[in-house]
Amino acid sequence: MQHLVPLDNLVAALSRLPGIGRRTAERMAMALVQDSKGLMRILANALLEADDEIASCERCGNVTLSAVNPCELCTRHRRDAHILCVVESPADIMKIEESGGFQGRYHALMGRLSPMHGTGAADLRVDQLLARIADEKITEVLIALGTDVESDATASYLKEILSTREVRVSRIAFGLPSGSAIEYSDAATLAKAISGRQKFD
Amino acid sequence: MQHLVPLDNLVAALSRLPGIGRRTAERMAMALVQDSKGLMRILANALLEADDEIASCERCGNVTLSAVNPCELCTRHRRDAHILCVVESPADIMKIEESGGFQGRYHALMGRLSPMHGTGAADLRVDQLLARIADEKITEVLIALGTDVESDATASYLKEILSTREVRVSRIAFGLPSGSAIEYSDAATLAKAISGRQKFD
Repeated sequence: MQHLVPLDNLVAALSRLPGIGRRTAERMAMALVQDSKGLMRILANALLEADDEIASCERCGNVTLSAVNPCELCTRHRRDAHILCVVESPADIMKIEESGGFQGRYHALMGRLSPMHGTGAADLRVDQLLARIADEKITEVLIALGTDVESDATASYLKEILSTREVRVSRIAFGLPSGSAIEYSDAATLAKAISGRQKFD
Repeated sequence: MQHLVPLDNLVAALSRLPGIGRRTAERMAMALVQDSKGLMRILANALLEADDEIASCERCGNVTLSAVNPCELCTRHRRDAHILCVVESPADIMKIEESGGFQGRYHALMGRLSPMHGTGAADLRVDQLLARIADEKITEVLIALGTDVESDATASYLKEILSTREVRVSRIAFGLPSGSAIEYSDAATLAKAISGRQKFD
């Protein structure tokens, strides 16, 4: 790259986006400075607008409009207010909402236990979870974390903490993904599907 | 995605970046709104700064600081002012500069002939090229375009137009990439390497 300071700064900022390496950031920056449709200003304004108007829900941690806090999912009356689905991040809330499979409230931990990245229990929104269980008379906590080692450790940690509370703790099922065949499933998935088998009636 | 207007706008703006699909834009937007290090504002400021301070060189079309126009490559005295390297875009100028293989001036066409995308000769900086050949007493035009069909058509078009001018027209060589083996080369590359063979002395 040619060394124009504003271009270098733009590449540096773009490189900080998730999944964007240096080369991709350079290509993006070049496309932006050559763009004739005002994309730089459109993107800058969208960023400033989002920065001003989007906040974290003080209750569940979901993204929400600054003016709507607690978020809509925390206050909608049609939803079951006594079951809490614990997820890692707001992105997970969106995926579960898209699935249409859950009608309760959410609680985002904002991370998972990760000794490698220095994330301990105190960095997660666990105290808030315990407070909500008491305040909101929660009867069931559904743990919706993935199957990797860190998510498993986080799930186990939550189960232990919650064992002293008057609350049912469940975890989403692991098994064959929808539309898949036994023949093409990997061993770990099949083993989980078998150990997690359910009564067929 | 949840429908928060500022979030939708951010996804829409990010989707317009080259190579960024809807899903990637959504992931980026979520990472941005959850980021705690002010990345949204840093990126917005970098975009506004670049928009203010970066311009297109009025002579060669390269990116340059608004305050340095014509660009540095057009005015540096150590460079050969009589050979013009014709490229598609400023990004190509950067790649050739990185290679260190060229010491003349550049001229970016800002595109290539593409009936499919509605780009004709009038959309390229061809008139400017002809004017420069006369004004700057250019003795050689080096066409540095790729090997795809559109680049080939553009190169042929330039050769024809330039055939009436008092200027030598050359084209970069096509052949085996550096460090490659005959065994692993594709047929088209090998054929070009053979037809473009050079005296070995």
